[in-house]
Amino acid sequence: MLKVGIIGVGTVGSSVCQILEDNKDIITARAGVEITPVKGVVNNLSKKRDVSVTLSDNVDDILDDDSIDIVVELMGGVERPYAVVKKALEKGKAVVTANKALLAYHRYELQDIAGDTAFEFEAAVAGGIPIVNALRDGLSANHILSIKGIMNGTCNYMLTRMINDGVEYDAILKESQELGYAEADPSFDVGGFDAAHKLLILASIAYGIDAKPEDILIEGIQNINSDDIAFAKEFDYSLKLLAIAKTNEDEVELRVHPVLIPNGEMISKVDGVMNGVSVIGDKVGETMYYGPGAGGDATASAVIANIIDIARSGKSTPMLGFKQSLESGLKLANIDEMQTRYYLRLDVEDKSGVLAKVATILGDKNISIKTMVQKPSKNNNANLLLSTHTCKELDIKNAIEELKISGVVKSQPAMIRIEE
Amino acid sequence: MLKVGIIGVGTVGSSVCQILEDNKDIITARAGVEITPVKGVVNNLSKKRDVSVTLSDNVDDILDDDSIDIVVELMGGVERPYAVVKKALEKGKAVVTANKALLAYHRYELQDIAGDTAFEFEAAVAGGIPIVNALRDGLSANHILSIKGIMNGTCNYMLTRMINDGVEYDAILKESQELGYAEADPSFDVGGFDAAHKLLILASIAYGIDAKPEDILIEGIQNINSDDIAFAKEFDYSLKLLAIAKTNEDEVELRVHPVLIPNGEMISKVDGVMNGVSVIGDKVGETMYYGPGAGGDATASAVIANIIDIARSGKSTPMLGFKQSLESGLKLANIDEMQTRYYLRLDVEDKSGVLAKVATILGDKNISIKTMVQKPSKNNNANLLLSTHTCKELDIKNAIEELKISGVVKSQPAMIRIEE
Repeated sequence: MLKVGIIGVGTVGSSVCQILEDNKDIITARAGVEITPVKGVVNNLSKKRDVSVTLSDNVDDILDDDSIDIVVELMGGVERPYAVVKKALEKGKAVVTANKALLAYHRYELQDIAGDTAFEFEAAVAGGIPIVNALRDGLSANHILSIKGIMNGTCNYMLTRMINDGVEYDAILKESQELGYAEADPSFDVGGFDAAHKLLILASIAYGIDAKPEDILIEGIQNINSDDIAFAKEFDYSLKLLAIAKTNEDEVELRVHPVLIPNGEMISKVDGVMNGVSVIGDKVGETMYYGPGAGGDATASAVIANIIDIARSGKSTPMLGFKQSLESGLKLANIDEMQTRYYLRLDVEDKSGVLAKVATILGDKNISIKTMVQKPSKNNNANLLLSTHTCKELDIKNAIEELKISGVVKSQPAMIRIEE
Repeated sequence: MLKVGIIGVGTVGSSVCQILEDNKDIITARAGVEITPVKGVVNNLSKKRDVSVTLSDNVDDILDDDSIDIVVELMGGVERPYAVVKKALEKGKAVVTANKALLAYHRYELQDIAGDTAFEFEAAVAGGIPIVNALRDGLSANHILSIKGIMNGTCNYMLTRMINDGVEYDAILKESQELGYAEADPSFDVGGFDAAHKLLILASIAYGIDAKPEDILIEGIQNINSDDIAFAKEFDYSLKLLAIAKTNEDEVELRVHPVLIPNGEMISKVDGVMNGVSVIGDKVGETMYYGPGAGGDATASAVIANIIDIARSGKSTPMLGFKQSLESGLKLANIDEMQTRYYLRLDVEDKSGVLAKVATILGDKNISIKTMVQKPSKNNNANLLLSTHTCKELDIKNAIEELKISGVVKSQPAMIRIEE
């Protein structure tokens, strides 16, 4: 019998206990050994929980218990779980975590501390989709050319509703909060930070690159409005919050931001709360992984898969999937140098000469226009909605600054990158 | 250094050699050891091949070489590779195969022979997509409720072209042969046998069920014509060759046949030569896996992933993913008892009373009609294209026999199951 201690018995922790009981037949057959949750640690002991494990409010009741083989960390946060996981690994206990923030900051230290002790984290990225498994094991023969992930269900639900049903941002945020898809403070999700944490984990497996959330471009979906949605529909794009890792010679771009994606691409079809991750390997080409990115049972499914894997193999694959340094010489790209196509929404005065001035400012920065739509807006202003040919991020940034001080635009221009 | 012997150095075998060389940096980092192909076995030594391994035409040059750690079996066929793989495993060599026919017939014997020796086969199902990995490891906490796979690129390419471009079956088969997507004798692909082999492998991992191709329903795409395509388009369906495993109480249905799928479903969007597999687990819900199902590099990517996995972990997960018998008491379903919706194409005389007779025959078998379209066809006949409400397979079969002897239909009725 393999004994499991669960630190943090909330939605996911309760699901882990329940599934280990519900599916004991198949789990025992697959693991070759009975897996039993024996202890749980919670902050608030007085809260009633429907689990059969012995509860305590002291992590040492698990960490100091030599009969416990595997510690499941579901606390949330960064520094406190780091101390807990460190101690568990130092005591030789296998660890399974669903904590993406912990890994976004401490994955390399933890890989070093773990050494030959199993440390698994499938549930930390895209919930029930076994994307860590796929990237680390299934695609290991490949140099990974790109990863493009829809990895935040809250944002994807909101954007899908905006584009399918014409709901405005504020209304759909309120609805998402009522449905429990968005937190009372939604900024971690809608600001792109949650997706960024997941991206950093995948980028470590693909590239062995070390970066923290502060090092990469993170933009959220807060500024998207119905004009952007209308433009996307008119030119047959989907609008998604994508987390992107992409190599370019000896650099890797890491960025999270809204993008317009042509509707033919497979990842454009990932709608609602679902997650999807497209990975392009230099040998295999494109593969895509689709499924539920959140929810108690889906996340617990990934946690238990890790436990079974540990039970089955005694020890597991090295945490990030490489035994020696990847030594690829890759460095983090300077985001100003990236090149792509852009969409701009400009609120301008509706009078002659304005369009010429906009075109001149863009032209001076080597930015050429591919499509343009002009629509009347309030106060006798007009909205210019345009897409550019491929140009440099820095040139777009400078052009936007230039437009702002020129007096031509009446409010902050909006920019969305186009991913083709 | 880990030494690999390759038996069968054709397209995939050559790709394995090439990728091990091209991506040596990242493969060594991930495996923790250098992986080197040292010997290859081929049928015809006089054929020129662009590989750096020593070639021989005798399998024992690999099997009897104690310095070779891993045997990659890429011979094709069933009984000859079985003897080769058996001998390799008995000698304690790890084996990696891409041979689905071998596994469709001998997977359980081979799992017994392998014991603790690694025996891997990711490339045997859906080429470059790590679906074996996902099902065996990533979803191991779940009872698998269903697997629905588009796992034959030839059929999917042909059906996609028929539906998108209105090409007729014979013309697209010829084109596929010219493009190299279909064999000179296409029956293994278009007849559904290739997909059936893959389905049997996945069903073993999911259910531990033993069945051979002869035990299950296998229908191909040979009878699909432009009327079926028109009906699919009119009612917003895609037309796919699906391999389906589905549990129903203590039975599991295993079947391969063309299906109409509502266009909203994710798997309906898998077009062209691509493969896609949707898996529903009782806890995780639906996940889907998409990518290239064939091709030298994509298949070799999966072969090498297995080799890296073996190098990394010393030994691997039990071949089919369970250590004890799954003991689920599941038995293979009698296909006559399955229930679904059906599409029928009936070539009838265009005169009064015919429709009443068809309706009566269907009604007598408890089959009710949901949608119907009547179109004129050649020789003053008419085509009745109809879909039914859910009914029993046996009733549809009997109704079709009844229609044939009634004199109402002028040629063999066509039937396609609807998967919703």
